[in-house]
Amino acid sequence: MADIKNNAITRQEDDFAQWYTDVCRKAELMDYSSVKGFIIYRPYGYAIWENIQHYLDKRFKETGHENVYMPMVISTSLLQKEKDHIEGFAPECLVATIGGGQPIEDPLIIRPTSETLFCEHYQKIVSSYRDLPKLYNQWCSVVRWEKTTRPFLRGSEFLWQEGHTLHETEEEARTETLKMLEVYDDCGRDLLAIPFVKGRKTDKEKFAGAMETYSIEALMPDGKGLQSGTTHYFGTGFAKAFGIQFQGRDGKLTNPHQTSWGVSTRLIGAIIMVHGDDNGLVLPPYVAPIQVVVIPIAQQKPGVIPAARELYKDIQEAGYRVKIDESDKTPGWKFAEYEMKGIPLRVEIGPRDIENGNVTIVKRNTGEKITVKREEMVSKINELIPQIHKEMYERAYRYLLEHTTEIHNIDELNAALDKGGYAKAMWCGEQTCEDKVKELTTATARCLPFNQIAIDDKCPICGKKAKKVILFAKAY
Amino acid sequence: MADIKNNAITRQEDDFAQWYTDVCRKAELMDYSSVKGFIIYRPYGYAIWENIQHYLDKRFKETGHENVYMPMVISTSLLQKEKDHIEGFAPECLVATIGGGQPIEDPLIIRPTSETLFCEHYQKIVSSYRDLPKLYNQWCSVVRWEKTTRPFLRGSEFLWQEGHTLHETEEEARTETLKMLEVYDDCGRDLLAIPFVKGRKTDKEKFAGAMETYSIEALMPDGKGLQSGTTHYFGTGFAKAFGIQFQGRDGKLTNPHQTSWGVSTRLIGAIIMVHGDDNGLVLPPYVAPIQVVVIPIAQQKPGVIPAARELYKDIQEAGYRVKIDESDKTPGWKFAEYEMKGIPLRVEIGPRDIENGNVTIVKRNTGEKITVKREEMVSKINELIPQIHKEMYERAYRYLLEHTTEIHNIDELNAALDKGGYAKAMWCGEQTCEDKVKELTTATARCLPFNQIAIDDKCPICGKKAKKVILFAKAY
Repeated sequence: MADIKNNAITRQEDDFAQWYTDVCRKAELMDYSSVKGFIIYRPYGYAIWENIQHYLDKRFKETGHENVYMPMVISTSLLQKEKDHIEGFAPECLVATIGGGQPIEDPLIIRPTSETLFCEHYQKIVSSYRDLPKLYNQWCSVVRWEKTTRPFLRGSEFLWQEGHTLHETEEEARTETLKMLEVYDDCGRDLLAIPFVKGRKTDKEKFAGAMETYSIEALMPDGKGLQSGTTHYFGTGFAKAFGIQFQGRDGKLTNPHQTSWGVSTRLIGAIIMVHGDDNGLVLPPYVAPIQVVVIPIAQQKPGVIPAARELYKDIQEAGYRVKIDESDKTPGWKFAEYEMKGIPLRVEIGPRDIENGNVTIVKRNTGEKITVKREEMVSKINELIPQIHKEMYERAYRYLLEHTTEIHNIDELNAALDKGGYAKAMWCGEQTCEDKVKELTTATARCLPFNQIAIDDKCPICGKKAKKVILFAKAY
Repeated sequence: MADIKNNAITRQEDDFAQWYTDVCRKAELMDYSSVKGFIIYRPYGYAIWENIQHYLDKRFKETGHENVYMPMVISTSLLQKEKDHIEGFAPECLVATIGGGQPIEDPLIIRPTSETLFCEHYQKIVSSYRDLPKLYNQWCSVVRWEKTTRPFLRGSEFLWQEGHTLHETEEEARTETLKMLEVYDDCGRDLLAIPFVKGRKTDKEKFAGAMETYSIEALMPDGKGLQSGTTHYFGTGFAKAFGIQFQGRDGKLTNPHQTSWGVSTRLIGAIIMVHGDDNGLVLPPYVAPIQVVVIPIAQQKPGVIPAARELYKDIQEAGYRVKIDESDKTPGWKFAEYEMKGIPLRVEIGPRDIENGNVTIVKRNTGEKITVKREEMVSKINELIPQIHKEMYERAYRYLLEHTTEIHNIDELNAALDKGGYAKAMWCGEQTCEDKVKELTTATARCLPFNQIAIDDKCPICGKKAKKVILFAKAY
């Protein structure tokens, strides 16, 4: 076995896209299967998803939601019930036509999203205002037949959660839509160390069948935006199409108001890009499957392995996810390996450290080396973990601020997009101007941010009176 | 709104199968979708599955396993690589032939099980004994196109976990196969209150492609057996078919030994049948989504609701999953509802209880009513929860013992199967005798139990020398 870990990956500045796929593969987050667009979530990548699930599932339950599981197939006739919805999804459908060797009369579409399944069920179980709200969520995978795919960012199958709720009133449904957007935003701030921009999608960019779509938008270091989660207010459109009615408090039959909301394994892609560097992954400590790795130095020397195991035990007892690598690989190999895997803290101990009563702690995010007294190790780790999270969040937030450029005309728009990041503009509200930006720059409207402090009074495209602040960016 | 809960369900003795589906529907565990065989796991049913997942996932991780996620589709050519395997699964396949509006050249089978996907991946990532063992598990749903379906017991789609492991030696793989069978058996004993019989499957009954299949078998109150989980030792058969090789400690290339193992939402069916009664579900306390329900009596009277909320708070703080029903339904309606839902303990409090400083606790499994002092409520619940679990396990175990009949000839075999339960017999080891039993009685060999104390010296079918103790039963 070679004793040198060849972790050579493409440098970000040479080819960001290639850097990204190199990290996905070499950090062992995923692998390709033989069916194009369908990836394998390897243990290290799946463990990140489990940590995201753990955070969100807890938050969903605290906000009154219940988990369910709907079928993975939708009959063609069912998917067609809501007109805008089928138009949006028809081009991406994977369709099963044979079951048990026989042709299927009403072919089955592998779920691209489950609004229609939830509606069919709600129609059966909701009849009174007493049955509302219905606050359901499901964890599953969905299939959208994609032509060009990239690990975690766009795939023919991806893991996600989809919340689907029904409410008595419009106000309650709208509150739900915004509340779940907050939960997603909290997840970015508390777990992923990613600052999201919250906002509303333009009509052109909203979900097929939604009255309004809200999103959390992240900014990648190549200057592109990444839509990272969405919540939708449907009004009563689906309810009408599916005949969902309830007897209201006034005794009259009426349609409930509906929402849906979801985030996916795309969040893993956001983590990789926002935080990673030329040595590989850099994982925010609370989402990292392994938070600390202990590496014995000159481990053949007497006393080193036992001392390293003591450190491991102390760190584990302090409640951290910790690993010790006692394999016969060289320390250099191990350093490269765990840097590639983005483990937030590396603890080293060798004969000289033992002699001096020290341990060495290395921060993955900054490379900083810290020597502490053996007995202070755990309290230092207690201090470093939140500190690293904060540093990573703040670094990402600075990048976001530095790459959000106010623009007042088309030249500034071009310059801002060339620099990378968001072009913050005023907008007249007409889709023609939105289309024009795309035509001129390939950038799309990311959102109408909740922060709506006007920066001008006219639309930089048509010159007409501006109505809204809008963010444009090139996007994944 | 009607104030009387009509929980009328078919009585077990009138029609056990109808009782079962009545409970599935009325306890709101599931609903049917419009696609035959694909059910909806409603919140109450799904919460039971989450509790099972929680128990097993912890045990899997403690025994060194890692979670992964494989694609939900398998190309036809990949599924065909192992001959016995495709023969076993071909008749049940759901096949996708259209993607994004275009025909798919190598049609995609929705996974009926994932051995072939794991093998394809293992072939790429395993090359040395240092890469072994691989101890992977995945939580997902699988699709098997079934003609006759029953909720949780047999469906076209069901939720499960599938472990897939690769080992350096035969011994290690065989140990894994038996170890995971123990984990499943523990789950029955600790969580589901179901005594399983552990044993090996006959060659006729083993999994498509396995050298040996082991199972946990449960006995239902209608006298039928229910295979509740299986573990398989594959030898090197799949590894050879998929070209998985590793360099051994001796430097030579060799094939690893493989296992797989799984349990599914069928366990929910086992819980329903083993413990349920004519009033509905009876849930074992550790798997119950709600362990205690608090019901205020004459709640319009002053002081009742506040007193009930105090009880709720105390029970919650003691660590139980508890619900309070303050709705304007009558107590009678609520009693019927929560009996149907099988909640292990009901706590009642009314004006007279408050006056006397008492609360009333009712055990779902026996109907027993217990009056305790208010201040002793939590310690009583602490005592009752494990007691109920024990009573339920012991009741099921007694049923198993009383319905395991030793038989020495065909008449006794018929009588034992007519009575219901297992016919415990000696067996010559020939499939012809196994076939003969099926032909005569419709019963199948459930397993060769690990407990192999001989009860005779000859096979009751052919009269030849007996080799093994075998259990026959009619089965789901």
